[in-house]
Amino acid sequence: MQSCARSWGIFLAKSVNPSAPCRHLSDRSRVVWKLQCRIGDSGASLSTGARALRTSAAVPSRQIERILPRHDDFAERHIGPGEREKREMLDALGLESIDQLIENTVPASIRMQRSMKMDDPVCENEVLDSLQKIASKNKVWRSYIGMGYYNCSVPPPIQRNLLENAGWVTQYTPYQPEVSQGRLESLLNYQTMICDITGMPVANASLLDEGTAAAEAMQLCHSYIGVQTMLKLPHEMDFSGKDVSGVLFQYPDTDGRVEDFSALVDRAHKGGALACCATDLLALCVLRPPGEFGVDIALGSSQRFGVPLCYGGPHAAFFAVKDNLVRMINLRLLKAGKEVYRLALQTREQHIRRDKATSNICTAQALLANMAAMYALYHGPQGLKHIAERTHNAALILAEGLKRAGHRLHSEMFFDTLKINCSVAAKDILERAVQRQINLRVYSEGVLGVSLDETVTERDLDDLLWVFGCESSAELIAEKMGERVKGIMGSPYKRTSKYLTHQVFNSYHSETNIVRYMKRLENKDISLVHSMIPLPITWREFANIHPFVPLDQAEGYQNLFKQLEKDLCEVTGYDKISFQPNSGAQGEYAGLAAIKAYLNSKGESSRSVCLIPKSAHGTNPASAQMAGMKVQVVEVDKDGNIDLAHLKALVDKHKASLAAMMITYPSTFGVFEEHIGDICDVIHENGGQVYLDGANMNAQMMGSKGLLHATEVAILNANYMAKRLEGHYKILYRGFVAHEFILDVRPFKKTANIEAVDVAKRLQDYGFHAPTMSWPVAGTLMIEPTESEDKAEMDRFCDALLGIRQEIADIEEGRMDSRINPLKMAPHSLACISSSNWDRPYSRELAAFPLPFIRPETKFWPSISRIDDIYGDQHLVCTCPPMEVYESRYEEKRASS
Amino acid sequence: MQSCARSWGIFLAKSVNPSAPCRHLSDRSRVVWKLQCRIGDSGASLSTGARALRTSAAVPSRQIERILPRHDDFAERHIGPGEREKREMLDALGLESIDQLIENTVPASIRMQRSMKMDDPVCENEVLDSLQKIASKNKVWRSYIGMGYYNCSVPPPIQRNLLENAGWVTQYTPYQPEVSQGRLESLLNYQTMICDITGMPVANASLLDEGTAAAEAMQLCHSYIGVQTMLKLPHEMDFSGKDVSGVLFQYPDTDGRVEDFSALVDRAHKGGALACCATDLLALCVLRPPGEFGVDIALGSSQRFGVPLCYGGPHAAFFAVKDNLVRMINLRLLKAGKEVYRLALQTREQHIRRDKATSNICTAQALLANMAAMYALYHGPQGLKHIAERTHNAALILAEGLKRAGHRLHSEMFFDTLKINCSVAAKDILERAVQRQINLRVYSEGVLGVSLDETVTERDLDDLLWVFGCESSAELIAEKMGERVKGIMGSPYKRTSKYLTHQVFNSYHSETNIVRYMKRLENKDISLVHSMIPLPITWREFANIHPFVPLDQAEGYQNLFKQLEKDLCEVTGYDKISFQPNSGAQGEYAGLAAIKAYLNSKGESSRSVCLIPKSAHGTNPASAQMAGMKVQVVEVDKDGNIDLAHLKALVDKHKASLAAMMITYPSTFGVFEEHIGDICDVIHENGGQVYLDGANMNAQMMGSKGLLHATEVAILNANYMAKRLEGHYKILYRGFVAHEFILDVRPFKKTANIEAVDVAKRLQDYGFHAPTMSWPVAGTLMIEPTESEDKAEMDRFCDALLGIRQEIADIEEGRMDSRINPLKMAPHSLACISSSNWDRPYSRELAAFPLPFIRPETKFWPSISRIDDIYGDQHLVCTCPPMEVYESRYEEKRASS
Repeated sequence: MQSCARSWGIFLAKSVNPSAPCRHLSDRSRVVWKLQCRIGDSGASLSTGARALRTSAAVPSRQIERILPRHDDFAERHIGPGEREKREMLDALGLESIDQLIENTVPASIRMQRSMKMDDPVCENEVLDSLQKIASKNKVWRSYIGMGYYNCSVPPPIQRNLLENAGWVTQYTPYQPEVSQGRLESLLNYQTMICDITGMPVANASLLDEGTAAAEAMQLCHSYIGVQTMLKLPHEMDFSGKDVSGVLFQYPDTDGRVEDFSALVDRAHKGGALACCATDLLALCVLRPPGEFGVDIALGSSQRFGVPLCYGGPHAAFFAVKDNLVRMINLRLLKAGKEVYRLALQTREQHIRRDKATSNICTAQALLANMAAMYALYHGPQGLKHIAERTHNAALILAEGLKRAGHRLHSEMFFDTLKINCSVAAKDILERAVQRQINLRVYSEGVLGVSLDETVTERDLDDLLWVFGCESSAELIAEKMGERVKGIMGSPYKRTSKYLTHQVFNSYHSETNIVRYMKRLENKDISLVHSMIPLPITWREFANIHPFVPLDQAEGYQNLFKQLEKDLCEVTGYDKISFQPNSGAQGEYAGLAAIKAYLNSKGESSRSVCLIPKSAHGTNPASAQMAGMKVQVVEVDKDGNIDLAHLKALVDKHKASLAAMMITYPSTFGVFEEHIGDICDVIHENGGQVYLDGANMNAQMMGSKGLLHATEVAILNANYMAKRLEGHYKILYRGFVAHEFILDVRPFKKTANIEAVDVAKRLQDYGFHAPTMSWPVAGTLMIEPTESEDKAEMDRFCDALLGIRQEIADIEEGRMDSRINPLKMAPHSLACISSSNWDRPYSRELAAFPLPFIRPETKFWPSISRIDDIYGDQHLVCTCPPMEVYESRYEEKRASS
Repeated sequence: MQSCARSWGIFLAKSVNPSAPCRHLSDRSRVVWKLQCRIGDSGASLSTGARALRTSAAVPSRQIERILPRHDDFAERHIGPGEREKREMLDALGLESIDQLIENTVPASIRMQRSMKMDDPVCENEVLDSLQKIASKNKVWRSYIGMGYYNCSVPPPIQRNLLENAGWVTQYTPYQPEVSQGRLESLLNYQTMICDITGMPVANASLLDEGTAAAEAMQLCHSYIGVQTMLKLPHEMDFSGKDVSGVLFQYPDTDGRVEDFSALVDRAHKGGALACCATDLLALCVLRPPGEFGVDIALGSSQRFGVPLCYGGPHAAFFAVKDNLVRMINLRLLKAGKEVYRLALQTREQHIRRDKATSNICTAQALLANMAAMYALYHGPQGLKHIAERTHNAALILAEGLKRAGHRLHSEMFFDTLKINCSVAAKDILERAVQRQINLRVYSEGVLGVSLDETVTERDLDDLLWVFGCESSAELIAEKMGERVKGIMGSPYKRTSKYLTHQVFNSYHSETNIVRYMKRLENKDISLVHSMIPLPITWREFANIHPFVPLDQAEGYQNLFKQLEKDLCEVTGYDKISFQPNSGAQGEYAGLAAIKAYLNSKGESSRSVCLIPKSAHGTNPASAQMAGMKVQVVEVDKDGNIDLAHLKALVDKHKASLAAMMITYPSTFGVFEEHIGDICDVIHENGGQVYLDGANMNAQMMGSKGLLHATEVAILNANYMAKRLEGHYKILYRGFVAHEFILDVRPFKKTANIEAVDVAKRLQDYGFHAPTMSWPVAGTLMIEPTESEDKAEMDRFCDALLGIRQEIADIEEGRMDSRINPLKMAPHSLACISSSNWDRPYSRELAAFPLPFIRPETKFWPSISRIDDIYGDQHLVCTCPPMEVYESRYEEKRASS
């Protein structure tokens, strides 16, 4: 569910608390805090070293398991190479057995000596069967709780062709725009939709969640890090001291109230503060948008645009700003020339800035942002307005019925949410709600809340009226209300401006059209086209659970959490797990915050130095920065191991103020630290804590045997590839490698004018997505084959790299031009190859089909030629461009030829 | 679920009866017969005329429906054009309103004057919700009933990426091999798998079901039509009179017994008869295959190779023959040159032979055959053998336990099925089975059956042992049996020959690989990439129901049948519906058989003449032939209407022997017969019955309002396209058209040497699948846009046809060569366009991107150039060719260049 387009933000958990200025958000923080307690409880145990490997597999001891073995094995299906292939790879490495490989790779000092207690491996069908049983423990009641989470109708064509489609789910971050134009186009649609609906000029391509977006907004007001928050009512706010950075309010607010914030916004601006508005996309389809009353930053969740509740996430948050703030946020999208999209404005991110980064987030919710964008395309402006009006009308009917039954509403101006002072005992109302399997929001004695949404039907309204003791029916109430329904549509809050006028939002309202559009985009992107993870999230028992339902309605989820916690504890050797962080980087932040809290609790709040080796995972320094620690970089030796002498010197120097050390294990250099135990001891002895980054830990829910096997094969695959490539390329820190290795292409700059980017782009012509570029070492390529690739695919990848090496040699030795050659001109798009005009000093075939396995019938084509990054950064376009630029470039060419 | 590659067979219902030679099949015929009764009951009502259209839509009368309208409309999502587009199309036609169009198109005499009583239109989410409720009424017990239907594990990657994937589900029959190579390759895998596993040299690409395959086998023995069947035990069979055409036996048989049929086969051959064997693919993975003991025809169901039960179908049947019978069957697959597949041997089919056809079937089960083929690829020979041994071992353990409990088995040599004489009252056993939610096969007093399958687990065996009163457990029994399990593996029946040795069955065992392979094939084929029909068939409550479970476990299915029957009766005006026919052509056969039975029951068995107009649906004459009727062709007039004078003359001539008239309505000429009422009267007055072919009836489960709207838009679309094309092409029977129309391209043969096939292939270059070619009128193209295409897509299609017309004009007027031009050379593959060598007198751009909307980034490429049909028919290759031909042609080219 993660990944795709990265974005940024900061971890919500510490920055929002029950006294934050937005109750809507504070309700969520209650859960954050609860789960965080668990981390706090076990803060000290964060320093346990990893011990995830052992070296022998179990043989069935029961006769029946021999004559009636398991039908199929999930792990075996996931692991690429079969027995014969593994044998061939071991032969190539000159090894007898996988055990021998592991002995050479994983230091004896860190191998696990016990077997893991996990369930036996099972086949995928059994997994699905047991998930079905777990799912049936969730109870799908009708939830009218609101608080940022709403039932919605996921359009089935979007569910099937996007959410459940490996072609959309598995793509990597679109760092290579030539093979990612489909998703980038969809994300531009998302940005355009957010701008249009909020009335703001610029939006980014999503953040992790609404909380992250709110924290980000406040930090942006304050110029980053160290915000103090205060909760006040609008009229209490005083900007006169010019000591307020920003104000965040909600419109409509969590209680449903719609109020006029324009005076507050004016006062804030006069006081030098920025105005931030948390808002609701569906409400804004009928409500005056924040962009029309001066707001500087608008944010919120796009969940209700067709993304299932899923017990609270993941959902994409939106984030939109005024023009003058554009360089302060990460837009990540830009149009450099006609119909060409790429990420833009990543300058605050860790992979560019390392320990100077002001953001540690390296995931966004691109998949879910794309779902929301497609929802808007599918319904179009008329459809969205229809849905918004319908939802609002339902709330008006309900409000009328509640008033007739003697209840009192907190506000007369609302969109879909009512806060109700009950005229009878709330207990009786809640009892009737239980009878009809309905969840309401419970404020306090005598006060209840109801949030409606697009799924509400006449029958639902009748049930709610009955629950609240209203003797009338929705039909009768509607008749009395007559044709002219009041509410927002008859008030000054009514939206008058148009939105989603671009043709893209007015073209795909039929199922045929939306499916073809999604398929067209999908086919522009390289993906794994691989769907190992079944998607029970789309089963209604998982999809339709509101995050704040009573726990007994979510037993299935609770079961899953417990089982996962048990297995993760077994694999990692830890005592407790928190599932709260919404991304790996949030996990880092949470871990460091826990360490800080632990040290504080011991009265050692002065400890603030965090040691981070060069081989650490990329987000580490940024997270340490954000957690308020001082980063000290530890050197690595020529084999890629942590330089123990340097470490000891640093520890000695910072002994008194040492807070923590962060270690990525195995490291991004592809090395298992032999002395990890010693390192942990040194830190502990000097009063610090060790944070272990498991970004490279191999743990996918296959049972302990499968897990072991996967780890072994991942190591075997990496070593086999390194073996095939050595002698042709320089491999950094070579010996036996762990699960990944680094190819050093820096020497070619001098010999052939070729850089890492040229090799990466040329790999696209060979049909491969480029490996990680310039990370962790600038100018190199990092290759991580994983266990799921089979030998044939790895051989093709090696063949491609060897083919490229030969092309480099051709340049080095003068057989090819050093400026106009297939590497510098890579990638070659179909438009380029099929054009009548071909003036290159090499053939079309060499350009497009450089090796026999790249064939016209099956080749994946980059949809555009190489993008000019510098031009792109200078010419930002953040929403869908006007129609005229969509005219085919080809058309022009054809006309002129 | 239907369509894709067509195949042939005949309707089983009448040819197999409770005394048929194969009990396994006869059990199925029980159901066939029961449902057929319904047709028989209402035979006379088949003559009701159609009256499916009316012209005004309802407006909501309730206030609440106005302020709280339905959220979304299923029908609107399915219908392409929006209001604006409909207006534009009406303007182009010079019409005021759709009503006016309907008045011009549908004769007043046949317009319906009442509104249809059907449920209101609902949105797709509501459909899914209500299906969920219906599904929950099905009870998923464990069924061990067997009889040709077995539980199986549908591999999740195949379910998700094939069965649930619009890219595989929606394709049309692969009549255009250049854009269908993916499915054709998979079907060739299917054929190869069938050949390998049965040990036969030739197999076809599937038939509708096992019953059809059995009937087809018997008819093939007899040289078609008019088989008499007798049920005998093997030793009773007497071939000495040389009056037996063939013998059909089952191996293993429905009771589970494995016996040696080689002597019977020899005797049959000596008596001049052919030997047909109904068999089981999984059993043959460990059992000597029929091809090794002289069988001429092997057949069966491939359901248990990964296709869900779905209450009995659809499932693909396989059909394999000896070499000398190859020209007697329809293989439909062939390799004409390297890596090129096409349909072959369609010579018996209706669309070639019309009333001389000996087959009326125009659908196969290609999708399900492809699922079975992918199942074999995913497991490979080792995997299949593992599954077969495991299933067999489970049966051995169970048999041992049953014997210990005092029960007696009917046979000691079995694969997975046991027939049991119970030592205690069967009633008690069945009661315990109910307690554990287990279905057994019930033969008669005291005799029960159990069929195991790949899904069986140790727990299942323990439950079965408990049900049968065995006090031991599977584990204890297994221990006693020791390592050397007997059964088939220790008998002469053991299979010793290899199978599935081709590389294609040994390459895709990991999920990553199988998914990429499926995606590679999918991307070679033009499909709708359109998935209107949700697939609740993959929900376990629908998928896992055995066809012979007690009715109270299938209430959900029964509900669906009843609702569908009610709606179809409402739409058609008939009283009863049979859901038994497995295809439209089977429906024709069943209908004619019902008419024949009705006439016979009135003592009028001499009536046998069937009148069929030239405008009838293609399968009609073949079905009439097969039902034993004499076909008389009725002429049509210049407007496409039935020639009433000719009809009356024929009726007069055949008055005494008139049995029926078959009418397709609206006709394949795209005409609504104004005089349909008169025609029915004439037939009825002369003692005949009218069979109405609804192949063109528009009825997709949208509610009556949606249905009406869809019909209107289908008519509007067809008329709009006809309007745009007239003046450029000759349109047959032009006036206002119904839902389709015929483009006459015959004149271009003389003026430009261009034929329909050239236009069809050139359309591929423009990105379109060719419309129906040379049907119903030879040398023409029949265009049926349907209601789901929007105006933009229709405009593009018209632009393509106008572009082609311009190209034809260029030839006519000498601007283009009449031999080497883009039409004659079409389609242009990517290999051709991207080659260095280009010696055509027209440009690459004109070849591949003839209009602006065909662009490199989005173009769908034919994967091969035009196939030489004549060469193909002369060089049949029906299984996967040896590896050497898979070497890339490109590679050769590159080596030589």
